[in-house]
Amino acid sequence: MREVAIVGTGMTRFGELWESSLRDLFAEAALAAIEDAGVDHLDSIYVGNMSAGRFVGQEHLGPLMADQIGMAGVAATRVESACASGGVALRTAFLEVASGASDLVLASGVEKMTDGADVTDVLATAADQELEAYQGITFPGLYAMIARAHMEAHGTTEEDLARVTIKNHHHGALNPKAQFRREFTLAQVLGSAMVAEPLRLLHCSPVSDGAAAVLVCPLELARHYTDRPVKIIGSGLATAPMALADRRDPAALDAVKRSAERAYEMAESDPGKIQVAEVHDCFSISEICCTEELGLVERGRGGQAVQSGETALGGRLPVNTSGGLKSKGHPVGATGIAQAIEIYQQLRGEAGDRQVPDAHCGLTQNMGGSGASSVVHIFERA
Amino acid sequence: MREVAIVGTGMTRFGELWESSLRDLFAEAALAAIEDAGVDHLDSIYVGNMSAGRFVGQEHLGPLMADQIGMAGVAATRVESACASGGVALRTAFLEVASGASDLVLASGVEKMTDGADVTDVLATAADQELEAYQGITFPGLYAMIARAHMEAHGTTEEDLARVTIKNHHHGALNPKAQFRREFTLAQVLGSAMVAEPLRLLHCSPVSDGAAAVLVCPLELARHYTDRPVKIIGSGLATAPMALADRRDPAALDAVKRSAERAYEMAESDPGKIQVAEVHDCFSISEICCTEELGLVERGRGGQAVQSGETALGGRLPVNTSGGLKSKGHPVGATGIAQAIEIYQQLRGEAGDRQVPDAHCGLTQNMGGSGASSVVHIFERA
Repeated sequence: MREVAIVGTGMTRFGELWESSLRDLFAEAALAAIEDAGVDHLDSIYVGNMSAGRFVGQEHLGPLMADQIGMAGVAATRVESACASGGVALRTAFLEVASGASDLVLASGVEKMTDGADVTDVLATAADQELEAYQGITFPGLYAMIARAHMEAHGTTEEDLARVTIKNHHHGALNPKAQFRREFTLAQVLGSAMVAEPLRLLHCSPVSDGAAAVLVCPLELARHYTDRPVKIIGSGLATAPMALADRRDPAALDAVKRSAERAYEMAESDPGKIQVAEVHDCFSISEICCTEELGLVERGRGGQAVQSGETALGGRLPVNTSGGLKSKGHPVGATGIAQAIEIYQQLRGEAGDRQVPDAHCGLTQNMGGSGASSVVHIFERA
Repeated sequence: MREVAIVGTGMTRFGELWESSLRDLFAEAALAAIEDAGVDHLDSIYVGNMSAGRFVGQEHLGPLMADQIGMAGVAATRVESACASGGVALRTAFLEVASGASDLVLASGVEKMTDGADVTDVLATAADQELEAYQGITFPGLYAMIARAHMEAHGTTEEDLARVTIKNHHHGALNPKAQFRREFTLAQVLGSAMVAEPLRLLHCSPVSDGAAAVLVCPLELARHYTDRPVKIIGSGLATAPMALADRRDPAALDAVKRSAERAYEMAESDPGKIQVAEVHDCFSISEICCTEELGLVERGRGGQAVQSGETALGGRLPVNTSGGLKSKGHPVGATGIAQAIEIYQQLRGEAGDRQVPDAHCGLTQNMGGSGASSVVHIFERA
């Protein structure tokens, strides 16, 4: 396999972007990444998108998006793994460059969620339709069950959950691209409306529009475009039973664990080497579970790690310095790419007020559904 | 890049399969391919699917399908390029094996179209929503315009179009997996109901359910599984402007031409070496246009090649020996994989009554929308 690096990035602000369509969002992010990298052509494009078919009545995003940026002709494919679609787009771009088939590949993600579809209904298509969605359960309910199981097994508290929100909004307030640049107090989180017990409104990531793109190329070419490329040294993708009821333990996210193991193995790395991580906090409980499955904190200590400040900026291993899905926003197809952009900026020392000092190794973890798919990437300064 | 081969295949019958759900169809094809190859595990799965989100309310097919065949855990991703989704699944599997990241990759495609959704409306999401579908045009109308343009430029006749149908139903009558195993006369085709002038009902591929899967692995491993592996020696993917009105000439399918050029280049091959081809005949006009763009017949002679019998079984270069989309059926996500299975069987000498004598090099071409995406693969006996 050829070594692979990222040499440019672009993203829209995340938020309720009423003035921008699906294709506008993609074009803004893609053109910014192309300009940032300074490339004059592309060999291939991957578009991570969960459900433009249901959100805005548009499938076939590969050619549409290539066309939209004036690159009709270029190979272009949509990839989908629900909320992990962006992470999977990065992985397929990585594999195409690693194979030697292409040099300049744009890995992108986009979602337009505010155009009128019933968002909760569309998102429920990421669960098992026959065993879950058809019975009426949606994602807040699924993650509430995960939260309850974690609380019972490990003593995780409602305050632990709230501290994830408080931390990520503290980080997001420092991020100009974030949907909600404001901080919350413990009282505000614990006083917010109950959505699915024990998850309150302020434990849930928002409905967002947005797009993000990164330019991936062989490491040997990367220095032609930037003096500070960031290597992708590991990529792992894994699945788990689709329906929560089919898993051995609802609090265990086996796909996250397996995807991390595969990424660490490819990178010849381990959790001890990670200095900054973007982790899939679609609900505050998922950051707690995922940091444990990734080996970044001890099993059962995910809540305490947040309480102690270990995973905050200034702590031992800052998690979701971008604000995470909770504060930065969660346009589902774009999230996995936006995570990679945060780590790229951290490893280049360009994260501004959110900078983790001297970070040279980082990780992203992007998850689909209630954890049925997960993709992990490990990055290193070149 | 590592050399890549196919070592096993499986597919359902194509048709209106009321008794089978989306996941049933996938499992039948996937398990048949796994058994045919004799592998005891998979490293990765790609699922080509156009719009399960709209057809049956289910996105996130990667983990769902891995779970369905008892392989929860395995890496699994859905890829989509409208009716070229299957071809793109084969390409991503090819790239993953070529990269060295994985050895045993299942490339699959599935579509369940008869479960109640408005099929024409769902298929229209493969066109440009803003410039085409929203204005009320659907695919028969788009291909009718392509047909008219080809007739005016090259003198193609209504009888030429009908001969494509007659040829492909003649082939499909010999294929046990085909949806419509019956022949039609010229009078029947020209007497069938007008759908979008000049295209009649019998110029249109049907609405179908079905699934298909192939097992892809490095050539160096292939002989461990079969004594007759089939190499994938070229893979090309290209796009063109999404909206027909944005193209330089509605009768020119530039994505088909470019995808073929890329595949021939990778294969170090040319049209003269192809002995059997599966070509995307979603409407009879598209087989005529595509055989020209692929270089298999001279530009403007696509209609005459069918009239003369050149592209029929027994002719110079048999096209759509499987029956094509027209007779075999067109469960859109599965079509690209089913095309590869036909060529695999032809190159192994296993095509029975449809066998092209001593075929050792074949081609598949799978197209999305009105030609906005196209993927070509070239295969050779190992």
